[in-house]
Amino acid sequence: MAADASGKGLLLKADLIADAFRAEVKESLSECIRQPTLIGILATSSAPSKFYADFTRKQCEEFGINFVLKKIGSAENPELADGYGVEEAIIEANEDTGVDGIMVYYPIFGGQQDHYLQQIVSPLKDVEGLNFKFHYNLYHNIRFIEPKSLTSSLPSSGTHIPVKDDTPPPGTVKSIIPCTPLGVVKCLEHIGVYNKILAYGDRAYGKTVTVVNRSEVVGRPLAALLANDGARVFSVDIDSIQEYTKRPRTSPEATRKYLPHHTAHPSNLTLQECLALSDVVVSAVPSADYKVKTEWLKEGCVCLNVAADKNFEKDVRDKASIYIPAVGKVTILMLLRNLLRLSRYKESTPEGTQQ
Amino acid sequence: MAADASGKGLLLKADLIADAFRAEVKESLSECIRQPTLIGILATSSAPSKFYADFTRKQCEEFGINFVLKKIGSAENPELADGYGVEEAIIEANEDTGVDGIMVYYPIFGGQQDHYLQQIVSPLKDVEGLNFKFHYNLYHNIRFIEPKSLTSSLPSSGTHIPVKDDTPPPGTVKSIIPCTPLGVVKCLEHIGVYNKILAYGDRAYGKTVTVVNRSEVVGRPLAALLANDGARVFSVDIDSIQEYTKRPRTSPEATRKYLPHHTAHPSNLTLQECLALSDVVVSAVPSADYKVKTEWLKEGCVCLNVAADKNFEKDVRDKASIYIPAVGKVTILMLLRNLLRLSRYKESTPEGTQQ
Repeated sequence: MAADASGKGLLLKADLIADAFRAEVKESLSECIRQPTLIGILATSSAPSKFYADFTRKQCEEFGINFVLKKIGSAENPELADGYGVEEAIIEANEDTGVDGIMVYYPIFGGQQDHYLQQIVSPLKDVEGLNFKFHYNLYHNIRFIEPKSLTSSLPSSGTHIPVKDDTPPPGTVKSIIPCTPLGVVKCLEHIGVYNKILAYGDRAYGKTVTVVNRSEVVGRPLAALLANDGARVFSVDIDSIQEYTKRPRTSPEATRKYLPHHTAHPSNLTLQECLALSDVVVSAVPSADYKVKTEWLKEGCVCLNVAADKNFEKDVRDKASIYIPAVGKVTILMLLRNLLRLSRYKESTPEGTQQ
Repeated sequence: MAADASGKGLLLKADLIADAFRAEVKESLSECIRQPTLIGILATSSAPSKFYADFTRKQCEEFGINFVLKKIGSAENPELADGYGVEEAIIEANEDTGVDGIMVYYPIFGGQQDHYLQQIVSPLKDVEGLNFKFHYNLYHNIRFIEPKSLTSSLPSSGTHIPVKDDTPPPGTVKSIIPCTPLGVVKCLEHIGVYNKILAYGDRAYGKTVTVVNRSEVVGRPLAALLANDGARVFSVDIDSIQEYTKRPRTSPEATRKYLPHHTAHPSNLTLQECLALSDVVVSAVPSADYKVKTEWLKEGCVCLNVAADKNFEKDVRDKASIYIPAVGKVTILMLLRNLLRLSRYKESTPEGTQQ
């Protein structure tokens, strides 16, 4: 993982990282009683959404997972509006006992209305992990859940199961984690940012990470995941910088212990100061104009681009030891992993089998 | 309700409309076994939020409802960040058996993160009606629900109870409707836009309404409520105009019948054309610069301003027959009505009494 002969940092394609998860998905699939079905709902004529739908199909076909693409609105007929019929399609898929997972290609209406649609998808079929329940569990570092909690509208109670390893205690299963932040964490695990010598649940301890963007879909859950795993995280948004950490701030001598989950505090540092401290920089800004300045990076840091646009400058590898330009190939495997998990979880909830 | 002697339309303050609901709230309250408690969560130093919190307290005191204001973050201490501790405060109020309703003063973080917080409030205590479940029921014209459905994370099933009058069928109760859109509907009922001679559930039939703004908090639910009550509604947003109607569009002869709930279709009309057709114009644009042009209004229409800023020009009453400049005084009564309803509903759900 050193700089190559040209003196530049390593350019690491996500394909290589994804390979490690292919075997896991295949093995899980071989244990399934029946072949699971994923439905994709394409409600716009947007080229990136269509591209992502084709990519989903290809990945499903590779594993022998049924993929059904439902085209509605302008995806079905250019004379129809974007998103026309999308809510009905989601409800139908929620109620269809033959459907194990639902993937909706966003953006459709944008903003709040898309957020509404994300909550309409049954948590039992939400392979993307966009239901607020999954965000709630993530923010509160609740890693293991009772399957029946998926059918409750009330947030999980405050009782916190201490995390010893990644084996769910009896009667519990792993919570579903939103695909994109999880894909980033898996990339960071793969390249050694997570230190396996440390205790499970604190393996990013000692690492400083800057996450640029604080959206509810990528930036905030990612910052929380990393902080819950022990990292010191700077969450940077257009108008503020926050520090996420699970180390207590009040008693310095107690920093080797930690809180059950991270807390967020305003930071007085500038982006330049954050970058100077950061071992890892993740950027997820949906703009072709936004660039993280290479000159501000710490020598030898790891840079990871999550945005569709390139958020790093062309010379990023002059400073970075490793640069991962995209994570989509890992994200889709996390989605399929969620599909297989949910199809198992569904069998242990009364509402799941009724549907 | 005619123009006054000056030839201008009637300026109608919401106080008069609110009076009609005071008696209802008082009567409901007299039937309560115990005095309900509303908790207000103030997490910023924003002056409008503080003003609204004081206003809530005053209204609660008038009725003898317990109001507890919990100040956190910058509301508690200027050195703390906006919103610091707000999620913990919501969770604590969710779990406190002595709390019947929770009101959070937004905006706090803005955008998606506030939307996340809205989902964290238990639907059993969500007096503002901001949980997606309530929006789902509203959009689908589901007026009556089983109380236990409040504790399920799955959207209500497709079975639709036909609406004959406003009496919930046995075993069901009225769904909770978001306060602000409901307040607007109550104002329109009061001034005769809803015609009581028509059948319940279709009393806005024959009326054309323009709603400017399509947010998930006000504009879209309001447009849906009005269309579900029979109106033809133009939903106007910055980049598009949609028509909401429950009349079928495919068979013109069938328009006297109607669908179980509205559908939305893109409109080719301009705002000027919509306004020329509209009996009622509601504007909810959060900008001091936005104004509905008086010259575009239909002579004798009804205008209602929901925004904190004035969205109508000073001469609006030269065209409007009635102008309602603000609805906050009605909105707060809808919130208290929701509080009393939820405190009753809670008693008929197992999770409600456990908490």
